[in-house]
Amino acid sequence: MQEKQKLIEIVGQEHFTDQIEELVPYSYDASMNVHRPDGVVWPETTEQVVEIVRFANEYKVPIVPRGAGTSLSGGVIPIKGGIVMDLSRMNRILEISIENRYAHVQAGVVCDDLNRELAKHGFVFPPDPASSSVSTIGGNVATNAGGIKGAKYGTTRDYVLGLQVVLPTGAIMHTGSYTMKCVSGYDLAKLFIGAEGTLGVITEVTLKINPLPRHAMTAVATFAKLEDAGKAIFQTMTSGVLPSVMEILDKVTLKSVKENTDIDLPDAEAMILTETDGFTWEEVEAQMEVVLRVFKENNPITIKTAKDEKDRLNLWKARKSSYATLARASNSFVLDDVTVPISKIPNLLVGIQEIAQRHGLVVATYGHAGDGNLHPQILYDEYHPEQVEKMEKVEEDLFKLAISLNGTLTGEHGIGLSKANYMTLEHDPVEMALMKQIKRTLDPNNIMNPGKRALD
Amino acid sequence: MQEKQKLIEIVGQEHFTDQIEELVPYSYDASMNVHRPDGVVWPETTEQVVEIVRFANEYKVPIVPRGAGTSLSGGVIPIKGGIVMDLSRMNRILEISIENRYAHVQAGVVCDDLNRELAKHGFVFPPDPASSSVSTIGGNVATNAGGIKGAKYGTTRDYVLGLQVVLPTGAIMHTGSYTMKCVSGYDLAKLFIGAEGTLGVITEVTLKINPLPRHAMTAVATFAKLEDAGKAIFQTMTSGVLPSVMEILDKVTLKSVKENTDIDLPDAEAMILTETDGFTWEEVEAQMEVVLRVFKENNPITIKTAKDEKDRLNLWKARKSSYATLARASNSFVLDDVTVPISKIPNLLVGIQEIAQRHGLVVATYGHAGDGNLHPQILYDEYHPEQVEKMEKVEEDLFKLAISLNGTLTGEHGIGLSKANYMTLEHDPVEMALMKQIKRTLDPNNIMNPGKRALD
Repeated sequence: MQEKQKLIEIVGQEHFTDQIEELVPYSYDASMNVHRPDGVVWPETTEQVVEIVRFANEYKVPIVPRGAGTSLSGGVIPIKGGIVMDLSRMNRILEISIENRYAHVQAGVVCDDLNRELAKHGFVFPPDPASSSVSTIGGNVATNAGGIKGAKYGTTRDYVLGLQVVLPTGAIMHTGSYTMKCVSGYDLAKLFIGAEGTLGVITEVTLKINPLPRHAMTAVATFAKLEDAGKAIFQTMTSGVLPSVMEILDKVTLKSVKENTDIDLPDAEAMILTETDGFTWEEVEAQMEVVLRVFKENNPITIKTAKDEKDRLNLWKARKSSYATLARASNSFVLDDVTVPISKIPNLLVGIQEIAQRHGLVVATYGHAGDGNLHPQILYDEYHPEQVEKMEKVEEDLFKLAISLNGTLTGEHGIGLSKANYMTLEHDPVEMALMKQIKRTLDPNNIMNPGKRALD
Repeated sequence: MQEKQKLIEIVGQEHFTDQIEELVPYSYDASMNVHRPDGVVWPETTEQVVEIVRFANEYKVPIVPRGAGTSLSGGVIPIKGGIVMDLSRMNRILEISIENRYAHVQAGVVCDDLNRELAKHGFVFPPDPASSSVSTIGGNVATNAGGIKGAKYGTTRDYVLGLQVVLPTGAIMHTGSYTMKCVSGYDLAKLFIGAEGTLGVITEVTLKINPLPRHAMTAVATFAKLEDAGKAIFQTMTSGVLPSVMEILDKVTLKSVKENTDIDLPDAEAMILTETDGFTWEEVEAQMEVVLRVFKENNPITIKTAKDEKDRLNLWKARKSSYATLARASNSFVLDDVTVPISKIPNLLVGIQEIAQRHGLVVATYGHAGDGNLHPQILYDEYHPEQVEKMEKVEEDLFKLAISLNGTLTGEHGIGLSKANYMTLEHDPVEMALMKQIKRTLDPNNIMNPGKRALD
């Protein structure tokens, strides 16, 4: 890198690298995309972030802010080269105010680390991405991370009260508030939530926090017919109960789990894992009673409820092992996250199997049925060009299917690089034009995570 | 109006006026601001809205979109003249999909009308502004309306899934989704939520809906010391319970209610009205038990719980009559809505009384203690210039106090006209500049609700 000396001046020799062996891990995320950056910096303060961004803006060097790099959509791949800015050193919890119901943290704080601190007070930051043991709050905000409990507790954007952001010009902006409610001026914080680092660098976050639910109850049901499982899901969601968990596993997932673990499973087209929660055990049980009644009305093969924590962990086993079991079953895979209106889940699952058969690949689907957010995992082999081609066709058909069902390309993984070419399937030209206008207004030199989202 | 003929062509003779007696009601809202428009149009379709906006953009005529005109901040006052666009004819509920958990409505649908339809299915759009019997969903979205249940259920922005917006250029934009989760592209819907009609005209809204809580329990406590009431509030909010209602009335409010109604009240510095809710009666009771325990630990004068619906309405009486009682007590009043971190409520209440005494006006305060959003009602006489001056000084000091307590100028009423001059107290120059940039980017001719928010 030519301007290496300047970056070293800002962060110090030990917090900059352009050594190829150190650049390699920053060429990847959890998607199948790869591109090497020219350098990596590890700032420790907002002031250092400011200096780095100012420098990048002056020399028109791309900057890619990065948390834990767990993006499943290529969101943190430095596709135009430039500098990856790893924020993991900015990992201080600045304030936990239980009495005012917020936590104020630096962007690099790990999600689970925050929740461990909050749990000491009986509180929680509810969004629970699968990557929470490593993913950072800054990354969660930049991608609007969701998780298993989204149907009841929403996603990251529902909890962000305020942000400190370094804009692409290097200016520090504070937006939002320390209060539970605020309608003063435009809601600029929301513009940066889910923007995948294309509008600035999030350096501090103020989050609303919730009391932890005291009790929860778990149940699992299997269904011989997909339609019955689909009906069980949307009938539950209209029953007056909002379960805190409502996960579905399709037959391909179940087959893989059955073949690769010792978990005892019937031959079923779908399994549903559900939890209810509340302040009292009576609340939890009464809600579960309604859910189980709905399940029973829809021809289940089996229904199991957990009597204790051991039972509960057992019931979670199939769901928890889906990703890894499937990942081991093939050389390569893509994990998508199309989302549809809840009643369209059976249509989506049937459509996915038609697509898989048409192109001759295995696609296993599981995910958050309670909010219609499913994860089709497409298995293929990246070293066989014709398999790569098939995978791309499956993905394209999958996106078209989701949109035709009134759905979205992405419920929680983001557009990033992987879905950039499909943006116009979902967004009309007027909306695309406004997105580009906003990007240009904030980032005239296009230095912030360029090459993403079809915004260039 | 010069261009009157064009507007009549678009909406028809009977849906346009420039007759002074018909313009007068459109010169007011629920604030103390007044300015007459040049004309009023009542479009019936999005296409008509498009034509009106295109026309306004071409001739650079101000357009002020208006729902029910219940703004408490001058948000719908046509301060630069031009055309008020009343959206009340666009009042069709387009779709209620209980199974997919959304309602899709035109902007002019009245909030309570929607909730009456939803209640038939056991569902609700939770934000509950005090004006819900007349206020429209479009207005609720444009102001990000909150209400009494905000601490537990959030505000309008937490429920907006998607919008149809007519941009200031006249282009129709669809943004957001029919799904519970969506992270595809920038979250443009959020830019229009709370924008008070300064960025475009909201014509359709898709809202997430919730199952109605089945049970609720009400209690009221009075406290001789404000500090004790303050402690009771934030200790409740940290107890693991999230009450669905947590309202406070200060001593000035209580005195006014006592003097002007037959409600029996002790001499107290504060009253707290609270409710817990849930799916089961056990849940509701167990939560209330915790709340009452906290109250008892903080030296209450009285505690009453409602045994039946008649009791419940009785307990609500003092809170429900606050606004009207105080409004009758003076020729004029301003209703503010500063918001502070929850633990700062006592400081805010004490500070408000100091300010009132300093300037020799009566200020009564009540509001949503559970989220720190209080409503100081400043009593004065608009026909006495020195009283107007005092009122303005009280407001300025009030805003400065709220900001000094880490609070915001407005929790739910908006900036509009009334607080435009105070924006820079809360927002740093970088944020103000970005707000202006965004306004200019979307509305280069500054036709949409101009003169508001210090954006011109």
